[in-house]
Amino acid sequence: MEVWPLARVLSRILSLKKSACGGALVTTSPSRFLSSGTTVLQGNVSRSYFSTGPPVTESTDLVYSSHGDPSQVVQLETRKLPELKAKRTYAILPDPPAVGGNEGVGQVLEVGSQVQTVKVGDWVIPRDAGLGTWRTAAVFSEDDLVTVPSDISILSAATLGVNPCTAFRMLSDFESLMPGDTVIQNAANSGVGQAVIQIAAAKGVHTINVVRDRPDLQQLTDRLRAMGATYVIKEEMLRKPEIKDIFKAVHKKKTKRKATANNNLNNTVYLIQVYPKPKLALNGVGGKSATELLRHLQTGGTMVTYGGMAKQPVTVPVSALIFKDVKVRGFWVTQWKRDNKQNEEALHFMLKELCTLIRAGKLSTPSCTEVGMKDFHKALDNAMKPYISSKQILVM
Amino acid sequence: MEVWPLARVLSRILSLKKSACGGALVTTSPSRFLSSGTTVLQGNVSRSYFSTGPPVTESTDLVYSSHGDPSQVVQLETRKLPELKAKRTYAILPDPPAVGGNEGVGQVLEVGSQVQTVKVGDWVIPRDAGLGTWRTAAVFSEDDLVTVPSDISILSAATLGVNPCTAFRMLSDFESLMPGDTVIQNAANSGVGQAVIQIAAAKGVHTINVVRDRPDLQQLTDRLRAMGATYVIKEEMLRKPEIKDIFKAVHKKKTKRKATANNNLNNTVYLIQVYPKPKLALNGVGGKSATELLRHLQTGGTMVTYGGMAKQPVTVPVSALIFKDVKVRGFWVTQWKRDNKQNEEALHFMLKELCTLIRAGKLSTPSCTEVGMKDFHKALDNAMKPYISSKQILVM
Repeated sequence: MEVWPLARVLSRILSLKKSACGGALVTTSPSRFLSSGTTVLQGNVSRSYFSTGPPVTESTDLVYSSHGDPSQVVQLETRKLPELKAKRTYAILPDPPAVGGNEGVGQVLEVGSQVQTVKVGDWVIPRDAGLGTWRTAAVFSEDDLVTVPSDISILSAATLGVNPCTAFRMLSDFESLMPGDTVIQNAANSGVGQAVIQIAAAKGVHTINVVRDRPDLQQLTDRLRAMGATYVIKEEMLRKPEIKDIFKAVHKKKTKRKATANNNLNNTVYLIQVYPKPKLALNGVGGKSATELLRHLQTGGTMVTYGGMAKQPVTVPVSALIFKDVKVRGFWVTQWKRDNKQNEEALHFMLKELCTLIRAGKLSTPSCTEVGMKDFHKALDNAMKPYISSKQILVM
Repeated sequence: MEVWPLARVLSRILSLKKSACGGALVTTSPSRFLSSGTTVLQGNVSRSYFSTGPPVTESTDLVYSSHGDPSQVVQLETRKLPELKAKRTYAILPDPPAVGGNEGVGQVLEVGSQVQTVKVGDWVIPRDAGLGTWRTAAVFSEDDLVTVPSDISILSAATLGVNPCTAFRMLSDFESLMPGDTVIQNAANSGVGQAVIQIAAAKGVHTINVVRDRPDLQQLTDRLRAMGATYVIKEEMLRKPEIKDIFKAVHKKKTKRKATANNNLNNTVYLIQVYPKPKLALNGVGGKSATELLRHLQTGGTMVTYGGMAKQPVTVPVSALIFKDVKVRGFWVTQWKRDNKQNEEALHFMLKELCTLIRAGKLSTPSCTEVGMKDFHKALDNAMKPYISSKQILVM
């Protein structure tokens, strides 16, 4: 029996540079992945799009032979697949050459006799970073794979394991958020940022979304607002005094609401004042942007850093720590998955919740650009460009 | 009935500048504090040292009329005490003129008819910061006072409420420390630092103590080691590669111990390698010193900031947050006391534990310089000097 990889996802800037080409795992063991020449389609897709064909013994892989600039070091190679083995071999971290890619979805084509957790036909995503998804077929240990439902779109499945999971955990694990609470984040247009907006909106949690100024700011604002963003503001706005009007204490909120009951005309003026200060700040940038998020956090709130696009550390005033009791934390979804390896339920509960949101139309597939595997250089180049909101997807 | 204030404590640099002259509370209500002209004695002291004398209607207070440099704004004034009132009035934060001082111990002289939690003869310390302890007598609400045992020295009682409590909570509330664990701290010679060394040592927890270089470094090192400090190192040492030898992983510790079993001569060489990386870092400085502490923290460890002597923010590398999962927190004992106002048990448990250590000789009174109340200018000047290890105590 065989596995059909439906899409291989090319990670965006950070993961390309840091993870994808920095520590890929190649593992051999009971399950077998296999490629087909099919094209990935938008929306839900049925199995019938994929032909069965002859037994697959080779895979076309995007391989890097040294660490460095992906557009320099990544090459396309066709390599022989290993045999399925009854004896399990554990994942190791190989020296290059290694296959790039942390994300993607595949379909199980064949399983070894000892395999229990995946079966032929299952859609599967990598359990850990560094599995090496930029290839048409592979043989993996069942421990390296997680089954996902096949009634969501391929693109949703292919992009489910990292950004939406990061957003989900950051909204769940640091502060107890209730409907009406506020979250502030920078990098609001990133894959994580968009998932944060949508998951928070589904919980009734307001989001204040900070983006860098750019030529198409109005379109971006409209797009994020359509996803459920409460506010979309430029980074410079965070430093202006007007911003404080957004975060009035909750008791003011009540007074103002009463005051507007007979005065609908002024509603928008007053509406700008109804949000409690953020309990949670999500930082994908670092540097000054992170310090600005911190300034708006409520007493006892938490800032979680998951990225450092500005390549600057997080600077925390001593007074914020001592007198405002802000908590400064970090989050890395890969580490969460490793820490929860024995806690299958937590992982499956999260994936189930995310798929429920996807099916309900509350968590959309990120904007994607599909690129054929042979044009991988184009995808790598696109992924490195600034202000590109689209995720590069390798189809095979 | 009446209260005898045994000692009034002059806080050291930070509290003098920030708290003591920044937000004193003067409250009137059921309990009455009263002064006597007695001198504070070292060691345990019995009641007989204090005369009863005529009813006390006045108090000599150290008052500040505006915020600013204590040596400029603090003045000695004799003021009339208010009557005891049956009706409780709540603490308010008055504008200056206000009485300075956050720490001290007094003895209850008289209580109003509604008072339940303190009785005549009790030794009491302020429950909150800003009570205004620099005076010979006062009338306070029972809610503003906490009873402490009278079988510890007056100096221990007078200095119990802030520094030892800060150290105790920081060692209890952030990481679960087990015997054999390591804590790293800067400002190791501060009041908090000395309490950390002693409370940690009593728990079997190792301390790596960072101090600024100074003329009497060897004496200071000897003194802190005598208190139980595992290592005392200069700040510059933290940046040297040798420091890493102190923090070997625990599995190395075991190997090394086996290796030395038959080789006692090399014991000291190997002993330097036996400590696990710190689970907890305590930061009273900020700036570069804090960043250095962070570098040595173990994965998942916590840095708690309780002071900012360097007047520099805490700078945290993004990678430490994401990939090392370090937690950056703050602690303010005043806030802890306020948050636990309904949780009397937690406060009393802590004071009981600290007094047990004091009685057992495991938590010494900080080095103190006693100054008569009229010489308060001398005490204020001393408190502002750098490298002064002695706490200034006003006796009255």
